[in-house]
Amino acid sequence: MRDEFRADLHIVSQLLVDMAEGIRSAMRQATKALLTADRQAAETVVERDAEIDELYRHVEERVCDLLARQAPVASDLRAMITALHVAADLERMGDLAEHVAKTALRRHPSPAVPAELRTIFTDMAGIADRMAEKIGSVLAKPDADLAAELDRDDDAMDDLHKNLFSVLLGDDWPYGVETAIDATLLGRFYERFADHAVNAGEHVVYLITGETASPSN
Amino acid sequence: MRDEFRADLHIVSQLLVDMAEGIRSAMRQATKALLTADRQAAETVVERDAEIDELYRHVEERVCDLLARQAPVASDLRAMITALHVAADLERMGDLAEHVAKTALRRHPSPAVPAELRTIFTDMAGIADRMAEKIGSVLAKPDADLAAELDRDDDAMDDLHKNLFSVLLGDDWPYGVETAIDATLLGRFYERFADHAVNAGEHVVYLITGETASPSN
Repeated sequence: MRDEFRADLHIVSQLLVDMAEGIRSAMRQATKALLTADRQAAETVVERDAEIDELYRHVEERVCDLLARQAPVASDLRAMITALHVAADLERMGDLAEHVAKTALRRHPSPAVPAELRTIFTDMAGIADRMAEKIGSVLAKPDADLAAELDRDDDAMDDLHKNLFSVLLGDDWPYGVETAIDATLLGRFYERFADHAVNAGEHVVYLITGETASPSN
Repeated sequence: MRDEFRADLHIVSQLLVDMAEGIRSAMRQATKALLTADRQAAETVVERDAEIDELYRHVEERVCDLLARQAPVASDLRAMITALHVAADLERMGDLAEHVAKTALRRHPSPAVPAELRTIFTDMAGIADRMAEKIGSVLAKPDADLAAELDRDDDAMDDLHKNLFSVLLGDDWPYGVETAIDATLLGRFYERFADHAVNAGEHVVYLITGETASPSN
């Protein structure tokens, strides 16, 4: 029974690692689409979001199956509930990558991001990528210190998000309202991506240390 | 055992109904704060979000306790997983109401919404309120037809969201970038509130009919 549970848990963990890889790749491609007006990259992200959704369903099915067959308690039950939380965060991160890709598509062949904002979005995407990588790592091999780094990454993302608004609200913003709206929404997509990474990390920390975190932000 | 499960399930349902009432009241107050620059209403929403988070934790604890003690299978297990999903959606709806309230606070004593957009936001808030009310009703008394109405409400919300962008992007938009950014984010908060209401409704429908819906949008 115990060995069977471990084997099932391993399958669930592997599905979560696959999801983390999927959403990392999605956000990389979406950023590429955004910064280079690459239509094909954008379309790939939109098409492949269904694969991430499918992995999410698999996690849910596996967890339900495992709860029904094995009736785990205590830390094993907690691991199952945590897996559901992490999967939900990852699924949403995939959606956010898709939103970035769709913004790129909507403006194509024009770039959705003007020259003045390229550095900020490149940096936001860099942090998003690092966070997605860390989520994948802590899921593959639990590491509370690495998971805790996600908080610092999120602070850096928030700083960039504030910088974005100062550029948009500067007296010399030359692009008008439409470009500002796109940038506002894009900024929010990257920032929410980071929030979900933090949530996912907190769930993994909870699993490792038993210390609870506040509800999602 | 069966009676005990029913009693526990009833407690979980009641917690979800309390959450639905909490987020409905939060969004009403947040809208009041937004449209009348009512600082006290805004502060109440921010303070009381902790109560919604607390209810969310209670749902999770109850469900975990119930899974551990009773090891439900089949439709009983499904009801538990559904309760977790619905609670997560409601918790997030509370956050979105808080975001609206914080936007009102940030601009106070100026109104965050200019005259030209008051009708759109009043209408969006009206739909959000109707959806929150329906979620509360279907949680108190499962009704697949009523839950299905949430999809139509969401369509109406999406139409208003599109109207909002046409006003913001009209040649005669007189307010500049800062007000457009606020309006863009506020529009997104109401629209996401509706999305989560649809998700919560789909989970309840799934519980009633066994028909699955696609992952959250």
